[in-house]
Amino acid sequence: MYDDLKADVCKANLELDKRDLVIYSWGNVSGIDREKGIVAIKPSGVAYEELTAERMVLVNLEGKVVEGDLRPSSDLQTHLELYGAFEDIGGVCHTHSTYATIWSQACREIPCLGTTHADHFHGPIPVTDEMEETEIASEYELNTGKMIVRRFQGLNALELPAVLVANHGPFTWGRSPSDAVVNAVILEQVARMAYGTLLLHPGQKEISEPLRDKHFRRKHGREAYYGQEKEE
Amino acid sequence: MYDDLKADVCKANLELDKRDLVIYSWGNVSGIDREKGIVAIKPSGVAYEELTAERMVLVNLEGKVVEGDLRPSSDLQTHLELYGAFEDIGGVCHTHSTYATIWSQACREIPCLGTTHADHFHGPIPVTDEMEETEIASEYELNTGKMIVRRFQGLNALELPAVLVANHGPFTWGRSPSDAVVNAVILEQVARMAYGTLLLHPGQKEISEPLRDKHFRRKHGREAYYGQEKEE
Amino acid sequence: MYDDLKADVCKANLELDKRDLVIYSWGNVSGIDREKGIVAIKPSGVAYEELTAERMVLVNLEGKVVEGDLRPSSDLQTHLELYGAFEDIGGVCHTHSTYATIWSQACREIPCLGTTHADHFHGPIPVTDEMEETEIASEYELNTGKMIVRRFQGLNALELPAVLVANHGPFTWGRSPSDAVVNAVILEQVARMAYGTLLLHPGQKEISEPLRDKHFRRKHGREAYYGQEKEE
Amino acid sequence: MYDDLKADVCKANLELDKRDLVIYSWGNVSGIDREKGIVAIKPSGVAYEELTAERMVLVNLEGKVVEGDLRPSSDLQTHLELYGAFEDIGGVCHTHSTYATIWSQACREIPCLGTTHADHFHGPIPVTDEMEETEIASEYELNTGKMIVRRFQGLNALELPAVLVANHGPFTWGRSPSDAVVNAVILEQVARMAYGTLLLHPGQKEISEPLRDKHFRRKHGREAYYGQEKEE
Repeated sequence: MYDDLKADVCKANLELDKRDLVIYSWGNVSGIDREKGIVAIKPSGVAYEELTAERMVLVNLEGKVVEGDLRPSSDLQTHLELYGAFEDIGGVCHTHSTYATIWSQACREIPCLGTTHADHFHGPIPVTDEMEETEIASEYELNTGKMIVRRFQGLNALELPAVLVANHGPFTWGRSPSDAVVNAVILEQVARMAYGTLLLHPGQKEISEPLRDKHFRRKHGREAYYGQEKEE
Repeated sequence: MYDDLKADVCKANLELDKRDLVIYSWGNVSGIDREKGIVAIKPSGVAYEELTAERMVLVNLEGKVVEGDLRPSSDLQTHLELYGAFEDIGGVCHTHSTYATIWSQACREIPCLGTTHADHFHGPIPVTDEMEETEIASEYELNTGKMIVRRFQGLNALELPAVLVANHGPFTWGRSPSDAVVNAVILEQVARMAYGTLLLHPGQKEISEPLRDKHFRRKHGREAYYGQEKEE
Repeated sequence: MYDDLKADVCKANLELDKRDLVIYSWGNVSGIDREKGIVAIKPSGVAYEELTAERMVLVNLEGKVVEGDLRPSSDLQTHLELYGAFEDIGGVCHTHSTYATIWSQACREIPCLGTTHADHFHGPIPVTDEMEETEIASEYELNTGKMIVRRFQGLNALELPAVLVANHGPFTWGRSPSDAVVNAVILEQVARMAYGTLLLHPGQKEISEPLRDKHFRRKHGREAYYGQEKEE
Repeated sequence: MYDDLKADVCKANLELDKRDLVIYSWGNVSGIDREKGIVAIKPSGVAYEELTAERMVLVNLEGKVVEGDLRPSSDLQTHLELYGAFEDIGGVCHTHSTYATIWSQACREIPCLGTTHADHFHGPIPVTDEMEETEIASEYELNTGKMIVRRFQGLNALELPAVLVANHGPFTWGRSPSDAVVNAVILEQVARMAYGTLLLHPGQKEISEPLRDKHFRRKHGREAYYGQEKEE
């Protein structure tokens, strides 16, 4: 019944491995069927070479497993919180990819230092606050989600589909599970180039707003002219 | 009729992917038939695994599509401006390769720090000025080309077949589409080694002019003795 | 008679090569059968492409070869010392992997800068003292082991299954030879990200104890809820 | 007649490509038959995918081609100078590998910062002086060789089989062409780890002489006990 959703989510998870964003069982991707109120997510702690569509876990919006023999990813509650807050997203992705994690560990947002960044993310990549001891002590994964949502007050989640959880690593999202993974791949490359730019030239300033908006609007929204015609 | 040109341009684009200079649909290569006044270029936003010679777009020197169902690369006007200004070039290439983009984002020219650089580029790799708001607002891609051409006043484009567009990334060119890609590959390696050299030894000076000229002339021009005999 | 042990140890050694932690004959993994008092270890100086289970060397706990035509790894005495001191471990691994070796050469412990580290290692990765001339002069490999054991006084070796030998490189261990290799792979990634974090943000502090303990306990011990149910 | 020599030299050149030390036609390896006074070397400017044993060029000790239709590597005179000065070597290798070239471009010797270095090179990797204008103007490649030889006065070339040519890149050598390549691979890894060590900990000191000698003697000379028994 949810075969397509499970297949999409499985494929998106495998793509993390293929793109070298994960090792072992690190990372997880989910997808949502908003009409049915069902989320498919990677099972917890299963290695990528053992993933199949059948092994994806289906849960409802409260996180209760409705199909599947395996436990869902331990980050499930973070995913659900994001689906609740960002209405237009269809997929969520979490990795510990090298350079995005380096920025997360440094507790620094990634400034928009070039057009590669502006082509995909409309502004600096935000970093959350560090978590309080009480937020860690209970419902940790849920609180991680809440922290992200709080950080996005006033921001457009679809124009800025990535966040760095302080001391931890990145979450990305998109209209579909595969979009969320594409954003994770691009975030990693943007993070790597921003890292190199600041090591080569500490204090390098962000690009101008007109240049940033120009590049973002070339690829996104009604005036986009990059790529081939398609409904967005 | 332009089957050879389209095949050459397609192959050069695929080489970008093979050499790890691009991800997804980033980057583009074009080639020109100067007799006929026709340019073949990658279609916009098409992934490398879906490229075929048939899908290359043919345009005239005003940028009007004369063959092909797809939109040309959004960077087309930059390519055309370079063909207009640099009479001896037959191919143009644009990437967001990691280290060349880092230098572009740092808005710094790449100094000639070693013979690897001097073997291929006769002087530091120039960086353009940053663009003004009015240059961004209309005809952005054309203005990018004009900015590059302006930066090359007094420089020999064939002896220095690369530029860094400030805040953006590199363009390279050459006698053919494949030459333009070779220069993009070598630029990336030169950029990577210059980056490492300055991190290890900030303030390292450029190599001497005699050493630079010696290496460049070993490989280029009438006194070249590197490689096997051939007409150049 | 020890076919399974030899097969496990061989496979774990080959994994080092597959995961790009070694070149040529660098690195070595061993495994122990505690009931029989037998250790299987990689032969010294043999390249990975020539390793087979049959070529693994069996030694007793004094280091005397009991089966095999080849010399055991020159680091054997270090392995034996660790088996003697850490009663619950079943495998030991030594590599010169790039980033873990960089930290070893810098003679600095790896601070716990993020949850990736805390997921796997319960505290900073310790670095040994530098060796005295007399410790180098005789029984060097044995003394290397003693130095590690001394450094672990008061530490829980299974919760912190890695050490940096100053000026040298990492040793890791685990419940089995393959666990020891998993820890070497993760150590390398943790070392790489800690290196990048401090280059980007010198002076970055360790994560809080509650966050560190939360992540470690999600994956280890009685309250673990990461992964699927299994006996640990 | 020199089929074995040509096969060995071809294989050693191909190994450079396989080990990712070169791109395009960069780099070259030669081997010598000291009895016959014949050197086999890579042809100049030929890509690795087109190399065959038949295409190796045979020259005598004056550099005159005695067999082969192609021009020898433009670095031939540097190789010949090294064969003349270092009597026990059987192969020479030149690359522009990334990290060894970074050190060459920074004009800094590679300090011995760890046992990986000491296992293979008995002391810091020397860097030559920068070349004078007159040395560049004529017989440049010969003078490069002379500069290396001058730098090695008082050093044991077989215990320290590598040099950094200032502003240029590394040369390595060994008892055979394949040994010279092994030393190039290890030099690159040593250079990479030394680079990282100094970025992480500027001012890190060299390891102690006893530790350096211990590691070098474990692997080299009469008291070596690393690896399996063999005549060296």
